[in-house]
Amino acid sequence: MHNKIIIYPGTFDPITLGHMDLIERSLKIFDKVIIAVAQNSNKKTLFSFTERIDLIKQIFTGNKKIMVDGFTGLLVDFAKTKNCYAILRGLRVVSDFEYEFQMSGINRILNKDIETLFLTPSEKYAYISSSMVKEVAILNGSLTKFVDPIIQIAVEKKLSSITAKSS
Amino acid sequence: MHNKIIIYPGTFDPITLGHMDLIERSLKIFDKVIIAVAQNSNKKTLFSFTERIDLIKQIFTGNKKIMVDGFTGLLVDFAKTKNCYAILRGLRVVSDFEYEFQMSGINRILNKDIETLFLTPSEKYAYISSSMVKEVAILNGSLTKFVDPIIQIAVEKKLSSITAKSS
Amino acid sequence: MHNKIIIYPGTFDPITLGHMDLIERSLKIFDKVIIAVAQNSNKKTLFSFTERIDLIKQIFTGNKKIMVDGFTGLLVDFAKTKNCYAILRGLRVVSDFEYEFQMSGINRILNKDIETLFLTPSEKYAYISSSMVKEVAILNGSLTKFVDPIIQIAVEKKLSSITAKSS
Amino acid sequence: MHNKIIIYPGTFDPITLGHMDLIERSLKIFDKVIIAVAQNSNKKTLFSFTERIDLIKQIFTGNKKIMVDGFTGLLVDFAKTKNCYAILRGLRVVSDFEYEFQMSGINRILNKDIETLFLTPSEKYAYISSSMVKEVAILNGSLTKFVDPIIQIAVEKKLSSITAKSS
Amino acid sequence: MHNKIIIYPGTFDPITLGHMDLIERSLKIFDKVIIAVAQNSNKKTLFSFTERIDLIKQIFTGNKKIMVDGFTGLLVDFAKTKNCYAILRGLRVVSDFEYEFQMSGINRILNKDIETLFLTPSEKYAYISSSMVKEVAILNGSLTKFVDPIIQIAVEKKLSSITAKSS
Amino acid sequence: MHNKIIIYPGTFDPITLGHMDLIERSLKIFDKVIIAVAQNSNKKTLFSFTERIDLIKQIFTGNKKIMVDGFTGLLVDFAKTKNCYAILRGLRVVSDFEYEFQMSGINRILNKDIETLFLTPSEKYAYISSSMVKEVAILNGSLTKFVDPIIQIAVEKKLSSITAKSS
Repeated sequence: MHNKIIIYPGTFDPITLGHMDLIERSLKIFDKVIIAVAQNSNKKTLFSFTERIDLIKQIFTGNKKIMVDGFTGLLVDFAKTKNCYAILRGLRVVSDFEYEFQMSGINRILNKDIETLFLTPSEKYAYISSSMVKEVAILNGSLTKFVDPIIQIAVEKKLSSITAKSS
Repeated sequence: MHNKIIIYPGTFDPITLGHMDLIERSLKIFDKVIIAVAQNSNKKTLFSFTERIDLIKQIFTGNKKIMVDGFTGLLVDFAKTKNCYAILRGLRVVSDFEYEFQMSGINRILNKDIETLFLTPSEKYAYISSSMVKEVAILNGSLTKFVDPIIQIAVEKKLSSITAKSS
Repeated sequence: MHNKIIIYPGTFDPITLGHMDLIERSLKIFDKVIIAVAQNSNKKTLFSFTERIDLIKQIFTGNKKIMVDGFTGLLVDFAKTKNCYAILRGLRVVSDFEYEFQMSGINRILNKDIETLFLTPSEKYAYISSSMVKEVAILNGSLTKFVDPIIQIAVEKKLSSITAKSS
Repeated sequence: MHNKIIIYPGTFDPITLGHMDLIERSLKIFDKVIIAVAQNSNKKTLFSFTERIDLIKQIFTGNKKIMVDGFTGLLVDFAKTKNCYAILRGLRVVSDFEYEFQMSGINRILNKDIETLFLTPSEKYAYISSSMVKEVAILNGSLTKFVDPIIQIAVEKKLSSITAKSS
Repeated sequence: MHNKIIIYPGTFDPITLGHMDLIERSLKIFDKVIIAVAQNSNKKTLFSFTERIDLIKQIFTGNKKIMVDGFTGLLVDFAKTKNCYAILRGLRVVSDFEYEFQMSGINRILNKDIETLFLTPSEKYAYISSSMVKEVAILNGSLTKFVDPIIQIAVEKKLSSITAKSS
Repeated sequence: MHNKIIIYPGTFDPITLGHMDLIERSLKIFDKVIIAVAQNSNKKTLFSFTERIDLIKQIFTGNKKIMVDGFTGLLVDFAKTKNCYAILRGLRVVSDFEYEFQMSGINRILNKDIETLFLTPSEKYAYISSSMVKEVAILNGSLTKFVDPIIQIAVEKKLSSITAKSS
């Protein structure tokens, strides 16, 4: 009998209450979760690779069941270095489903040992996504119900620094 | 560190190669799988409740990681008696996704400890469902690529007994 | 300036908290709602046509903004007799959307004056449907979080009378 | 260079203007269309197998590019007897798409030579299906915009004969 | 009894015959429509914020039931300033549905008084979207069947000015 | 009796094994296929318009049933110059379906003679798309199972030239 570990990959730009709910619920089933932050160098992000990793580390500091790591290549290669072949992904809507369905197929072609498990969000987080969070923030809406206070402060600071630069 | 068990519920009328593939792959992540056959008294099935349980037992006989059980009430109540709150379900198509999304929501309302995990099928089993299997069998098509030989024989026997009765 | 009335048609077998939430929210926009219960003679229902109308009347008794009525033919013909051409429908999932999309198209072909308006449910009612309610009840689950107490009692009474007859 | 023939299978209970539009448009691309009526013995139909074939024959009588035939077993076996491996199917909505996607996969497993081609309906026929037609007819709505006059008369006659029997 | 007003928000880059059909049909149910043009500063548009507002004003000039306005922040904040909590949105396809479903959820979280109502397009406008219109125009296709003549002229003028600049 | 020709349009940035499988299977039904490469000047591509055409020509060199051509305006105008009104498109997922549904509608509005036929992919190619191929390549994954060796070499060369320039 060994520890059951699962990898939860994503861009997390930024991490939302929906992501955090999924992580918490996965810990009812698995012993440890590795939050794997993808660099995504070809996608423009609000927070840098390092910032995204640091913010998640701040949120889960002290929680021994959660590890936070960044990765730059293929997810299947990162999984191999961790010797962990179970991937966790969230499914909110049909379009998520189709994209995830394709990705899990591609990953299985790239490494047949990889298995992707899916969880659906709690209903109150069903509408939240990182891009919605950024859209609301840009339009000066409150993020209280969407992200952790640590993230709320970070987003506001980031947006005001961008505004300062562009003015 | 304790055994990780998951419940895989369904009607299994009959069990297909798609179901068997999912069970096998789930054993890469979990220590044991309880195949939980639903009675479904308000749905007309080809095989009786007892037959569906027996056929699955025959297929997995000798495999200590797989338990087969029947249940008659709510899935969440069955899960409680087993002291196991992780449910496994397969997702093949968008319409599956929506139904499963609703069911996992309903189950969470009925018992907040229940978590439903989803796996997608291997591509070669993506088209197979129990109802497709029965449709092909009724039209005299070969089931070789869709079900285990044990099931193939059972379906043929069952259909010929029905034809005998109705003639 | 005249009263704004909308027709909310359905089978309501039985009415759920999801339906009731939609009705309540529609009254923020419209002055009156006509709940139009369809006979649906070619679909087997748990409650009879008269029972379904009566249960809804009991729930909304005293509320002057809500009228309850039954209809037997085409919805567009019922709308004409009421001189009201605005129809309200709920949209919970993609499969709802496609069915409703077709129905609103068919109704527009049958009567070009008819307009169908859609509302989405509050997140906590997103999983509830009449058929889910009946499924849970048959399996002895509690209906407290899904329907009004009046409906809960009626469903339990109905199911025990069916069981009594069949034993 | 040989004749290009395509098989257009279905239950056609009854054939609608949507089906007829698809057949007509397919003749811009193919030389001949075989309308293949499925017996569907396990599905209750309004018109019998023979009636459904006869009604389509009446509609297309004299048209040398259209053949009408019935089949009872697997579509792939019927296709083989006709030495024609191109199947035509209509796609109206997402749920059609998923069902057809599965069926074309199953047919490919049963006979790797079979190819299924899909056409989408003209917008004005996008909402029409055989089941909608029957629903509208039962509720005394006019079928003028949904089916050929031959079918309209046949449906009305059939429904009045059923009503006569049941009274 | 007071005026029933609804807000119809969008980017309208540019307004299409589909949008205009929806507005016209909504006036069968509501007394007034406020067309609310979103600035969308983080999305590159063909027409500027002011141009998009002006073009819609030109089209509906003289129509007292239609007001045109621009807004820059959150839609829920704009709605509050207008003291109008009913939002109208069009639903053409499943992917629209999912996006709108999320947006209406987010808006309800931001302001619980907001209700979003949906209308589906007339079948002949089901395929038209602002992005399709721009794609067709760039490829030198005729816009006659997609937009109002005022918009057709504006798009052609805008595209030729862009071509002139870039050559 | 004349040759049956079909146009298979796309961006092909780059062509995948999924595209090639579709072309091969379409030749079971049609006599010739014109692969029509769209310039797509407003979309950033990895390979230039000329490169995309040349790569496809290299792959199918010597095959007399396949013609490769580029086009810059509307597809319906290109079809007219070829005097060929049958368009072939692949359908992998629901979101494909909706986009294609709209595009075939738009094309029918632009030219009523155009018909679009759809094929679904073989199951083993269901997950492959040009954008997935590029994503995998950027992350240093092997393309062996996704594209022809000619394309594999071209993608690797292209990506290393981009990296060289940007360093």
